Amino acid sequence: MSNTAGQVIKCKAAVAWEAAKPLVIEEVEVAPPKAGEVRLKILYTSLCHTDVYFWEAKGQTPLFPRIFGHEAGGIVESVGEGVTHLKPGDHALPVFTGECGECPHCKSEESNMCDLLRINTDRGVMLHDQESRFSINGKPIYHFVGTSTFSEYTVVHAGCVAKINPEAPLDKVCVLSCGICTGLGATINVAKPKPGSSVAVFGLGAVGLAAAEGARISGASRIIGVDLISSRFELAKKFGVNEFVNPKDHNKPVQEVIAEMTNGGVDRSVECTGSIQAMISAFECVHDGWGVAVLVGVPSKDDAFKTHPVNFLNERTLKGTFYGNYKPRTDLPNVVEKYMKGELELEKFITHTVPFSEINKAFDLMLKGESIRCIIRMEE
Amino acid sequence: MSNTAGQVIKCKAAVAWEAAKPLVIEEVEVAPPKAGEVRLKILYTSLCHTDVYFWEAKGQTPLFPRIFGHEAGGIVESVGEGVTHLKPGDHALPVFTGECGECPHCKSEESNMCDLLRINTDRGVMLHDQESRFSINGKPIYHFVGTSTFSEYTVVHAGCVAKINPEAPLDKVCVLSCGICTGLGATINVAKPKPGSSVAVFGLGAVGLAAAEGARISGASRIIGVDLISSRFELAKKFGVNEFVNPKDHNKPVQEVIAEMTNGGVDRSVECTGSIQAMISAFECVHDGWGVAVLVGVPSKDDAFKTHPVNFLNERTLKGTFYGNYKPRTDLPNVVEKYMKGELELEKFITHTVPFSEINKAFDLMLKGESIRCIIRMEE
Ligand SMILES: NC(=O)c1ccc[n+]([C@@H]2O[C@H](COP(=O)([O-])OP(=O)(O)OC[C@H]3O[C@@H](n4cnc5c(N)ncnc54)[C@H](O)[C@@H]3O)[C@@H](O)[C@H]2O)c1
Ligand SMILES: NC(=O)c1ccc[n+]([C@@H]2O[C@H](COP(=O)([O-])OP(=O)(O)OC[C@H]3O[C@@H](n4cnc5c(N)ncnc54)[C@H](O)[C@@H]3O)[C@@H](O)[C@H]2O)c1
Ligand SMILES: [Zn+2]
Ligand SMILES: [Zn+2]
Ligand SMILES: [Zn+2]
Ligand SMILES: [Zn+2]
Repeated sequence: MSNTAGQVIKCKAAVAWEAAKPLVIEEVEVAPPKAGEVRLKILYTSLCHTDVYFWEAKGQTPLFPRIFGHEAGGIVESVGEGVTHLKPGDHALPVFTGECGECPHCKSEESNMCDLLRINTDRGVMLHDQESRFSINGKPIYHFVGTSTFSEYTVVHAGCVAKINPEAPLDKVCVLSCGICTGLGATINVAKPKPGSSVAVFGLGAVGLAAAEGARISGASRIIGVDLISSRFELAKKFGVNEFVNPKDHNKPVQEVIAEMTNGGVDRSVECTGSIQAMISAFECVHDGWGVAVLVGVPSKDDAFKTHPVNFLNERTLKGTFYGNYKPRTDLPNVVEKYMKGELELEKFITHTVPFSEINKAFDLMLKGESIRCIIRMEE
Repeated sequence: MSNTAGQVIKCKAAVAWEAAKPLVIEEVEVAPPKAGEVRLKILYTSLCHTDVYFWEAKGQTPLFPRIFGHEAGGIVESVGEGVTHLKPGDHALPVFTGECGECPHCKSEESNMCDLLRINTDRGVMLHDQESRFSINGKPIYHFVGTSTFSEYTVVHAGCVAKINPEAPLDKVCVLSCGICTGLGATINVAKPKPGSSVAVFGLGAVGLAAAEGARISGASRIIGVDLISSRFELAKKFGVNEFVNPKDHNKPVQEVIAEMTNGGVDRSVECTGSIQAMISAFECVHDGWGVAVLVGVPSKDDAFKTHPVNFLNERTLKGTFYGNYKPRTDLPNVVEKYMKGELELEKFITHTVPFSEINKAFDLMLKGESIRCIIRMEE
């Protein structure tokens, strides 16, 4: 038992006081974990677009003051009542979605959308008592997607914490908490390309590059990157992308361009853009008879997916995935092992590192489109 | 070798001279099979909606005079040059779609949409020489989907002929040539429900009843029939349907009704209506996390399938199928064996039988919605 167990911990956290204003490093109080919860000491965290979207709060429900952050690696400091699968000292990755182990989704082999611990971006409190574990001088600060990793200590539902190999470097595997697993799993777990097949990846951001990495690991021979920004191709080559199409360079729909390049369509496609047009193109560019398209990008509220039903009758399949169909507690330890064995490359996703005090620089880099992943070191 | 091999055969055929006018039994000349073709003596044929649609020619390209018919069982009379997998005397089922064995679809485990022999409803001639094998006093009569089984003898591409167990009763297994396999395979091969699961079947015509039979064979425990005609439920019970929903009985979308009945949605759904609204409902009524919907019905040209992309992201799958994903030559013999072993029940699909001379009665029965399948006996 650590000597802080059961006590309030005072530590540094990056607090977002208002939408789109720089985070401020503050001293916060972190309450001990309650029943079914875990308090983690965060060592490394990284920045994902979802943090930026909710911090900007342009379309999203604004909830401030809030502590963002959901990709991280840390060590269990203490556990609340009834937590049996984690103990102080365990190396762990917190995840924005969880695995209660009891609901129909957790019991299904096919789903990772836990009824209890599925992502909820509007909730700023803990499930157990609808209260926050963070405060400044007694005034609560909201949580974000149950993780709030932009803090030296955070409290997370135990069902959202994966225990991993303690030898895994946390400054690398922390990126598996969100975007990288999302893209990787979309290809490996859902699209499942066969060795030698062709895969189109729409959108070459972090998620799309991870989808390409999944295609490379699966042994796909043609990996066609599709992005509106041609400069993304150079970078994407490192991730196995060996052909590139910019829809802007053609005066016909990109699905037709791809069908011509591939004698009727690609075997698999993975959409990682959030653009409804790209979703439709990603579906319509797969080969009839066997093509499978997988949607990953988060669309706008009013978007409609629209296609002629004959595209389905001609034996095309359309699926979508959430967090690459990985169950956080069950599957994440194995993804870490894949990295440890050298099958999965994570270093190439990490383009920048900053100390915690410069966390706002990570936001700048992402907003300028310069970083894939920027690691934030909690210890200077 | 039969003594008619290589010769023109004169026999009876039911000729459609004009759209929607009763067929006329005529004496026709049937030319010998050319390279890669087979001449079949038809013993039993049955009527399918597709025959009726093209005979009515309301939306379809009219092509007359024509010999319809595509569900049948017969015996090989003679084979053309290069045909090795069939010989005179073989019992066989002709199919409107084929298996060349050489194209990427035939070589793929996942597809049955042969590039060469895929259904073509507008072609009224044989592939080999773009000519008809049927004539009356030397004037050609058009073929229909490469089968034209409303004739005592017909010529079919050998790739469209499945050789089956000679002990199988042709007056029963002839219905496997189209609708029954389409529905059966949609469930067994594509939706793949697990034992104990729930399946919604939209449309309780022959195809939907076969989809229900597939669910029954798969061990589904809840089989929910959905049809606009409530009287269909009584009949459907024989096919394993144990719950029924008529969308007209509710003032909310049927997908919501089904979600409420099933604690969030069915495990699988199979759409067998051709109605775009039913296609959308069939997709939206499957459970998130693991639900799979399969489209079978043939939509109108201008229909658009429309749904919110989040329905996919929540891990629902949408697929379509053509002829239940069966490869005619490879798979049909095994479906016949399933019937021979008593696993698949065909008798209940056969509601009527008429002699060839009364073929127009089969059309009447179908138009009135009284028959599921009416068998037409070629020998009086
Ligand atoms: N389903 C999940 O579990 C999950 C998890 C994390 C992220 N996401 C979503 O995945 C998507 C990608 O995330 P990211 O962080 O990589 O984003 P990103 O913004 O870094 O990358 C998106 C890329 O898509 C490209 N793009 C946009 N519209 C396009 C179009 N019409 N055609 C081709 N390319 C186009 C952009 O140029 C950009 O390079 C986002 O929508 C994000 O919300 C989903
Ligand atoms: N994909 C293929 O390979 C293939 C092969 C054969 C037939 N089909 C198609 O399958 C479909 C069914 O064929 P069938 O012969 O059984 O037709 P059918 O007309 O006998 O049966 C269709 C049933 O659907 C019901 N229906 C219509 N609209 C509905 C709605 N909105 N909601 C619920 N029920 C509705 C009708 O009342 C009817 O009972 C047709 O579209 C046909 O063209 C496809
Ligand atoms: Zn759960
Ligand atoms: Zn994220
Ligand atoms: Zn073929
Ligand atoms: Zn048919």
